[in-house]
Amino acid sequence: MLYLVGLGLADETDITVKGLEVVKRAERVYLEAYTSILLVNKEKLVSVPEAFYGRPVIEADREKVETGSDEILAGADKTDVAFLVVGDPFGATTHTDLVLRARELGIESKVIPNASIMSGIGCTGLQLYNFGQTVSMVFFTENWKPSSYYDKIKENISLGLHTLVLLDIKVKEQSYENMARGRLIYEPPRYMTVAQCASQMLETEEERKEGVYGPDSLAVGAARVGAPDQKLVVGTLKELAEVEMGQPLHSLVLLGRRAHDLEKDYIREFAVDKATFDASWQKGYGASS
Amino acid sequence: MLYLVGLGLADETDITVKGLEVVKRAERVYLEAYTSILLVNKEKLVSVPEAFYGRPVIEADREKVETGSDEILAGADKTDVAFLVVGDPFGATTHTDLVLRARELGIESKVIPNASIMSGIGCTGLQLYNFGQTVSMVFFTENWKPSSYYDKIKENISLGLHTLVLLDIKVKEQSYENMARGRLIYEPPRYMTVAQCASQMLETEEERKEGVYGPDSLAVGAARVGAPDQKLVVGTLKELAEVEMGQPLHSLVLLGRRAHDLEKDYIREFAVDKATFDASWQKGYGASS
Repeated sequence: MLYLVGLGLADETDITVKGLEVVKRAERVYLEAYTSILLVNKEKLVSVPEAFYGRPVIEADREKVETGSDEILAGADKTDVAFLVVGDPFGATTHTDLVLRARELGIESKVIPNASIMSGIGCTGLQLYNFGQTVSMVFFTENWKPSSYYDKIKENISLGLHTLVLLDIKVKEQSYENMARGRLIYEPPRYMTVAQCASQMLETEEERKEGVYGPDSLAVGAARVGAPDQKLVVGTLKELAEVEMGQPLHSLVLLGRRAHDLEKDYIREFAVDKATFDASWQKGYGASS
Repeated sequence: MLYLVGLGLADETDITVKGLEVVKRAERVYLEAYTSILLVNKEKLVSVPEAFYGRPVIEADREKVETGSDEILAGADKTDVAFLVVGDPFGATTHTDLVLRARELGIESKVIPNASIMSGIGCTGLQLYNFGQTVSMVFFTENWKPSSYYDKIKENISLGLHTLVLLDIKVKEQSYENMARGRLIYEPPRYMTVAQCASQMLETEEERKEGVYGPDSLAVGAARVGAPDQKLVVGTLKELAEVEMGQPLHSLVLLGRRAHDLEKDYIREFAVDKATFDASWQKGYGASS
């Protein structure tokens, strides 16, 4: 059996009791270590869970999962293999590929769900019912500023819905030069901040000029959801472009105009500046659905 | 401190290790027992978790949470009170009211996230990125067949997005007669099935005739997500209106036309009839986003 075990959002104790039982009795344990991270210790992705679970944990990077999945699945028709995923195995990053490959090999699989940022973002007090499609924001470079996310936000905004923006992380990436020369030297990990995301959003709006949102649009920045030092900050995009949210991981929610008063009452507490919050709210939010 | 602890989706072992620690050391433990249920035993909502957590658990019905919250919060400024919620505390049903009341009383609160059906539905293999807003389906009666959900589905469909439909549950409800006479007699609990939901959806479409979906539209029925006997069935709404999915809880996802091939490859396995699935897919899905 292949078990896909969600680890939850923050640290090694966010695993479920059921998931921990699976990890303890599995023949081999892999940790998917490239699409998200536990917040425990960036340098010790594997050793912290190892110590807590009392089991050796094999780090599975993108290459191992995408092209070396047969190694992960070896023998899983006869014994149990656990594949650990930060968040939920079918949440922000889905591992359907691995399950499809298992199916081809006649290996059954089971999912042990856990919190995903896709639902954990409810901790902002914004109602998950009122979210449209989720978008991803990648690090812009000099020559590459993809704005397909902007079209999706435009669709959500047209319906008055909130948008969860998931922020890029770069783990174990090579520079073009090192890749070209075949040198296995990796860049230091990078995690996009709420401020970077808000700036990039404003940059796209300035370029596209479709008025989907603007500097006065309200958004919620969330850092380290589910951790003891979880931080929520509410402000205009202009304000959030300057905000300091501390350690990763960060996410952002752009508010839709259907936001209602209960949501307002909840998030106002986290406003950078209650006066600008009230002014922006007054102008554009709280319309009936 | 008020702790809102997510219990996850299926049984008492879906609590996180972190959540279990909170439950074990809290002064009092409440279980929200009216918006969702653990799948363990409908008659023993409280005693099963009690036995597992090794703690007395107080059942909190709607009345206690909505009008008697001060009882729940009593003393939580000095000691720890745990409020257990099936799924995630801020998932399908949010408990922002309780947190706002705690704030007013100067009581801090913390959330221990867990899987919610809002993200757990990813187990269908449908990508959570491609979902629009979530809707709720209530039990229709002779004279009350609310169709506001239909307008929201229409919006999602217009964008090509999937729609998660959450199905009504009736726990501890009184009949009108008993309520009028002030008799505290409760009806047996009812849980909407995938078949009932699909039928009601078709009934609304017949009445509204806006062509948002039809008998040949594809949907995924999901039962007992996260439990060992989790069941997924894929079919047209006409097929699903006849399907038998077994014990509750059930959910349904109406497919959007942007569904792509990886999603198709994953869900086809669960088709009631692969021929009708392929025919319906061919007609309406897989359009580029």
